[in-house]
Amino acid sequence: MNYDVLIVGGGPGGYVSAIRMKQYGLNVAVIEKERLGGVCLNWGCIPTKSLVKVAELFKEIKEADKFGISVSEAKINYQSIWQRKNEVVEQLVSGVEFIFKKREIPNLKETVKTINRREKDYLIETENNKYTAKYIVLATGSKPKTLPFMKFNGTTIMSSRDILNMNDLPEHLVIIGGGVIGCEFASIFNHFGVNVEIVEFLPHLISTEDQEISKRLAMSLKKVKIKIQLNTGVEGFQEQKGKLILELSSGKTIETDKVLLSVGREAQMDIKFPGKELKTENGFVTTDKEFRTNLPDLFAIGDVTGTMMLAHVASKQGLIVADIIANEVKSTGIDILELNYAAVPACTYTDPEIASVGISQQEAEKLNKKIVIGKFPFSANGKSLGLGNRFGFVKLIAEEDSGKIIGMHIIGPQATELIAQGAYMIGTNMTFNEIKKIIFAHPTLSECIMEAAEDLENKAVHII
Amino acid sequence: MNYDVLIVGGGPGGYVSAIRMKQYGLNVAVIEKERLGGVCLNWGCIPTKSLVKVAELFKEIKEADKFGISVSEAKINYQSIWQRKNEVVEQLVSGVEFIFKKREIPNLKETVKTINRREKDYLIETENNKYTAKYIVLATGSKPKTLPFMKFNGTTIMSSRDILNMNDLPEHLVIIGGGVIGCEFASIFNHFGVNVEIVEFLPHLISTEDQEISKRLAMSLKKVKIKIQLNTGVEGFQEQKGKLILELSSGKTIETDKVLLSVGREAQMDIKFPGKELKTENGFVTTDKEFRTNLPDLFAIGDVTGTMMLAHVASKQGLIVADIIANEVKSTGIDILELNYAAVPACTYTDPEIASVGISQQEAEKLNKKIVIGKFPFSANGKSLGLGNRFGFVKLIAEEDSGKIIGMHIIGPQATELIAQGAYMIGTNMTFNEIKKIIFAHPTLSECIMEAAEDLENKAVHII
Repeated sequence: MNYDVLIVGGGPGGYVSAIRMKQYGLNVAVIEKERLGGVCLNWGCIPTKSLVKVAELFKEIKEADKFGISVSEAKINYQSIWQRKNEVVEQLVSGVEFIFKKREIPNLKETVKTINRREKDYLIETENNKYTAKYIVLATGSKPKTLPFMKFNGTTIMSSRDILNMNDLPEHLVIIGGGVIGCEFASIFNHFGVNVEIVEFLPHLISTEDQEISKRLAMSLKKVKIKIQLNTGVEGFQEQKGKLILELSSGKTIETDKVLLSVGREAQMDIKFPGKELKTENGFVTTDKEFRTNLPDLFAIGDVTGTMMLAHVASKQGLIVADIIANEVKSTGIDILELNYAAVPACTYTDPEIASVGISQQEAEKLNKKIVIGKFPFSANGKSLGLGNRFGFVKLIAEEDSGKIIGMHIIGPQATELIAQGAYMIGTNMTFNEIKKIIFAHPTLSECIMEAAEDLENKAVHII
Repeated sequence: MNYDVLIVGGGPGGYVSAIRMKQYGLNVAVIEKERLGGVCLNWGCIPTKSLVKVAELFKEIKEADKFGISVSEAKINYQSIWQRKNEVVEQLVSGVEFIFKKREIPNLKETVKTINRREKDYLIETENNKYTAKYIVLATGSKPKTLPFMKFNGTTIMSSRDILNMNDLPEHLVIIGGGVIGCEFASIFNHFGVNVEIVEFLPHLISTEDQEISKRLAMSLKKVKIKIQLNTGVEGFQEQKGKLILELSSGKTIETDKVLLSVGREAQMDIKFPGKELKTENGFVTTDKEFRTNLPDLFAIGDVTGTMMLAHVASKQGLIVADIIANEVKSTGIDILELNYAAVPACTYTDPEIASVGISQQEAEKLNKKIVIGKFPFSANGKSLGLGNRFGFVKLIAEEDSGKIIGMHIIGPQATELIAQGAYMIGTNMTFNEIKKIIFAHPTLSECIMEAAEDLENKAVHII
């Protein structure tokens, strides 16, 4: 078969790009052996968020008394929770499959072995078939890293994917790596009653976040009895009578039932390019601003490029590549957007939630930027009090001279939804003077953003 | 005592204005006999939202099974719920009182009887005292309306304030008036097991909302067995053996324990202006764009003006008046903002929540505007599925020619927080092309807004 575009990988980069290309009338197919949706829909964002919901509901049920509701006995059935998670995933993934069917986008259930550049197009070889396409989009994603002395075995040493396959709860779980994935699972399994311990090599949890946020997160995780060891590496381990004994750089050991190893992700890229070399750096495919690789008409998007490994970055890149190719093939004349990475929000579904967009205070200081900081605590907000969820704050960072907002950092209720407002601010280059034009509804959590903005001028009404 | 500014009324208009004025160094006092915070904090937004939280938690507990949590018995203790509501209010109101104390803003616990214009200032007389001020801000708010034949008695015929004082649950409650207040209480008491019936004179619930939203709301309220009678007036009533018998325009009658009468609000204004006439219309004080009344240096803000009777409108007006007076008294040189009512969000904390900003489809059609509509259902959104809350949709309205967003209407999870994004769009005159610059985090409910915007061009990825 001959296509305008072949997309390799059906995750949130690839499948979203394919649908948009088809909307433009391009002849596109996706090569993906597993189900559409990639890690995100199948073994990442979506299943974890389904668990997060149950974990937080269970926590609230245990505290229902403080709301005036008496609950005599509440128990979780982890098999049912696990089953519900699978149903949510099934619903979403089959939804994407249905869209592919309806829009007549082929999903080739194969694995690409080689991609051969020919004079005017590409020849793609899978196990059994050959395809040709004028354009290629590599969207092959990433996979979890391991430690040199510790590989996944799927049951006691688990990747983030393995732990989602686990359908009963261990008594004790050690999470190696206190990044986004590690901290989310720590919150979830802590709420379910598992004894959770995080070991993190760096001095802060989720080290990409503003340090004030990381510290608050650590504080609140400790409060619910999650043990956290920072500045600590795992240097070896032994197995004894069904238990794992981890040897830490501090000289201590931890005995545990199971380990979640979440120490980062690496590019997923096993394709050969005969006679050509695809440029990579640390295994990640190198691209320019338009996501073009060094090979002609061959694009790369999403995790395989290593740039902000987030589903929504992959999707956005996929949409932009669709625009670029549509312009070339269909002369659609679309204005090509330049992806503004400074305006990309990041969300962590811990309890409390954290979310950020733009730069942190530490990054601003490193860049010697003159900044002003505005902060507002949820504890002074009416809706937070009504919700009984008053932990955390909104932190805004603006350039002192221009007033331009360059960072928003939130820890607290609904942080992952509120952060969209920071994406608007940074995405449209708003200054804090312009925020005054926005009218925030009362009583909402969003008012904390308004007051954090007012605090940039020391004019927040509800703080002294 | 002589002040720069005397603010009459300590609600969200008056108290917010006073704090901002004090931040500018003005000599300001607030005359308010009741506690600071007005209806909103004491008997409105805040106490109801505290009840909403418990109502929704109780609902989720009753459905916990579907999440994999088994709860053997859950009961509400309405006295405790009521007590918690009072604590939330106390916390917030005492917070405002603390700010007044710290900032040294006098709260004069009196009632203003007359305001006399003198050559260069005003003389304000209360029951016992006289004050002078160069500027006056009227922020006296509003009060619930009654029907000609039906007055509040505080126990069986209740205002929205009375019902918050009720500390046990009736078996049967009739709500006369299916506006925002009526519908919120219907949702709350329905979740608490009360038999609720709404009687609304107009053909739609919350008639200011987009009709598609009103209809969906009615649909979901009916689904949980709230009875709704539209196009129906109450024409009389009798009391029999502790019950109320309501006579409806349809010829039917309803027997009930209690009635919440929520048929609108009217201006609260009993002050005399000797020798002068304060201009009003239907009882509401008339102002210009800068909130100036016909009397010199006398402003009016909030519900007493009758313009969009919302707490956040009153607060914003109060902040703008603070700017105007600071410019006159302190030569602060602040740019005076013109309040853009088209960008004011409105929130209703029913279950499901509804929220809107800008104009409805019906209003657009009445204005003969050429519009495009974009819609996206929560049922196609990953986070909604994870939350187990997939009812509803986001609806965006844009001008066909300019692409300018002129309306956003949401029914569904977190509508009251998501609507802030519509306030950004309309408040900063965004077109739907500009929305493409925003990057929306995955998985969030906010993505429904992104897809509704894409749907304006028939380019939503996740709908066919």
